[in-house]
Amino acid sequence: MPQRIYMDANAGAPLLREVRDSLVETLSLASNPSSVHSEGRRARGLVERARGQVAALVGARTEGVTFTSGATEAAVLALSPTLSRGSETVRLGRLYVGATEHPCVLAGGRFAPEDVERLPARADGRIDLDTLEARLAAHDYATGAPLVALMLANNETGIVNPVSEAARIVKSHGGFVFCDAVQAAGRIPFSIDELGVDFLSLSAHKLGGPQGVGALVSASEDLRPASLLRGGGQERYKRAGTENVTGIVGFGIAAELFGIYLNSVGELARLRDELEAGLIEISPEIGIMGRDLARLPNTTLFVVPGVAAETAVIAFDLQGIAVSAGSACSSGKVAASHVLEAMGLPFDLARSGIRVSLCVDASRADIHRFIAAWREIYPRLRQGRAA
Amino acid sequence: MPQRIYMDANAGAPLLREVRDSLVETLSLASNPSSVHSEGRRARGLVERARGQVAALVGARTEGVTFTSGATEAAVLALSPTLSRGSETVRLGRLYVGATEHPCVLAGGRFAPEDVERLPARADGRIDLDTLEARLAAHDYATGAPLVALMLANNETGIVNPVSEAARIVKSHGGFVFCDAVQAAGRIPFSIDELGVDFLSLSAHKLGGPQGVGALVSASEDLRPASLLRGGGQERYKRAGTENVTGIVGFGIAAELFGIYLNSVGELARLRDELEAGLIEISPEIGIMGRDLARLPNTTLFVVPGVAAETAVIAFDLQGIAVSAGSACSSGKVAASHVLEAMGLPFDLARSGIRVSLCVDASRADIHRFIAAWREIYPRLRQGRAA
Repeated sequence: MPQRIYMDANAGAPLLREVRDSLVETLSLASNPSSVHSEGRRARGLVERARGQVAALVGARTEGVTFTSGATEAAVLALSPTLSRGSETVRLGRLYVGATEHPCVLAGGRFAPEDVERLPARADGRIDLDTLEARLAAHDYATGAPLVALMLANNETGIVNPVSEAARIVKSHGGFVFCDAVQAAGRIPFSIDELGVDFLSLSAHKLGGPQGVGALVSASEDLRPASLLRGGGQERYKRAGTENVTGIVGFGIAAELFGIYLNSVGELARLRDELEAGLIEISPEIGIMGRDLARLPNTTLFVVPGVAAETAVIAFDLQGIAVSAGSACSSGKVAASHVLEAMGLPFDLARSGIRVSLCVDASRADIHRFIAAWREIYPRLRQGRAA
Repeated sequence: MPQRIYMDANAGAPLLREVRDSLVETLSLASNPSSVHSEGRRARGLVERARGQVAALVGARTEGVTFTSGATEAAVLALSPTLSRGSETVRLGRLYVGATEHPCVLAGGRFAPEDVERLPARADGRIDLDTLEARLAAHDYATGAPLVALMLANNETGIVNPVSEAARIVKSHGGFVFCDAVQAAGRIPFSIDELGVDFLSLSAHKLGGPQGVGALVSASEDLRPASLLRGGGQERYKRAGTENVTGIVGFGIAAELFGIYLNSVGELARLRDELEAGLIEISPEIGIMGRDLARLPNTTLFVVPGVAAETAVIAFDLQGIAVSAGSACSSGKVAASHVLEAMGLPFDLARSGIRVSLCVDASRADIHRFIAAWREIYPRLRQGRAA
């Protein structure tokens, strides 16, 4: 049996070898960083080193990084109807979310459902800046300032939003911006200051780090959302609960490595382009989402008229290749992609999206095997459709 | 240099060897359990096996276990002003918390500060059942039912609360009960049904499992607090976010092992008693909290008149022994123990508490070294106090 090929990095990348080694080394050092004894102080040192590594990946100040249990927690933490700025409390009256955002952002965090408003996506998947401008012009400031949540790169399509332009618009309206940077981090270069956002979220396991750890990164240590987990004084009172030392250490190493890998994403994009060329040669009728747009270098989402994506995913799995139907299906239910629906695709196409997301160590041989698998699978899928 | 001795299990126990081995083995299997491909389904299987192991430790049904990022998150999740029971919404008007609860419970979760009421502790550290009865008799049901939060065993003193008696009282008043069982789990035998509580919280790293994972356990799958982390449909919509597969696997193994260790806690208690006898022989003026009460078998909290606990902790650390000043000091600030203050101790004594919490593999040799260290440290502490 040939080795399996894992092409589902956007659902979670396998642990980088270096991260794995550091975890194995750190497992027995994971004491409580709040403890005064040597074991505790050593653990504290590990956490603080990782904080610097994560900050560096997104050009943030070290103290701007708040470790969380993952990107979902980071989003719920950020999407708070009140912020504190120094000793002042800032009220946020309404949350505007892009229609293609991740479910944890669409859910609106701690805003009441009636205070969450969706911003439509353009047909090309990106946020419509004119609509954003118009919605903010109509914002009712009596309820508080606007908060806008926009992802930097979409998890299903890889399409990159014009976040810095959007942030300028939001700022000109006195609003605040949260950016889900989970998929973009380490795959396209950016810094929190270039983006001009107030907060961004990161997830370790999308970077080849461990599951169960992420971060909310703030542009200014002065501006804080109301704490979500309260109790102990960890993370400068921004997030209570004993730190996940081993997880945080792994996150730090992964962030440092992905900072280096940013230099070689061109090669990843070339492999992705070869994969797409192969797909189109075999099945010219498929549609590759955002092919001419700024996209993540590792992500291809293609739709196959008349085919249920799950069927294709299972067929690839039997060929030893892990891909996904849009995003990982957290509820266990098969459904159409809300991202593709937001881009105006009909249900039939919106449930046909197959996502291939390459890991950082993808090779040309992997691409060839993927293409060979598609050559076998595609005629059968067409046949199934005809039946 | 002799090996260090770690006697701070209540702040976080070192990874059990078996857990460490299972983590190392699982690190490369931690795919996204929501993924349809083989890697995802294997990860799903690992999570579900661990769910059963954790449920078994507290006699719960497997589906009653919701994995969280730790006990703080579990408490904030449980302390919700609304519950759902089937399709019905249950409003909770007021949260009653024991005065010796962990900070994450004292913080009141998602209740407004004015809706959180502290229940005084008796001088012996336990909840006063008469006061509980009286407070509930005065409860204003127009605001919703009462929710009562009581820990099973205190993290600083190890003193065991009469939770099942308290739960009977709460139930007779139509209320709901959350129990912080973090320190009790695996150290004293109990089941969620015996306790008669609706929810209890657990933390893996207090059981020799990994940090960054815990659980909220429900007596009935039918009764759910409003979700705290929303987005994906993980954990049956009770807790969004990709599961921490490796952490959960480690938690499962730790829970299974501690279920077995419950059979040998008598030996741990004997070691603890020898340690206490040694302390008293050297320094008869110290006070051991709850010595004649039902206590955790591994925990000794002793107060030393006129001594700041931090000083003693550092002295022990220099002798190669890790103990703590009450609980781990999450804010980095030295303060008096709120637990000892709730028990009526004056500030001077309340900041002198030294906690020794034995790990499950503690040996008689460890106890002898601890006593020898105290024989050295104590005269110096007395001298410092005199100066």
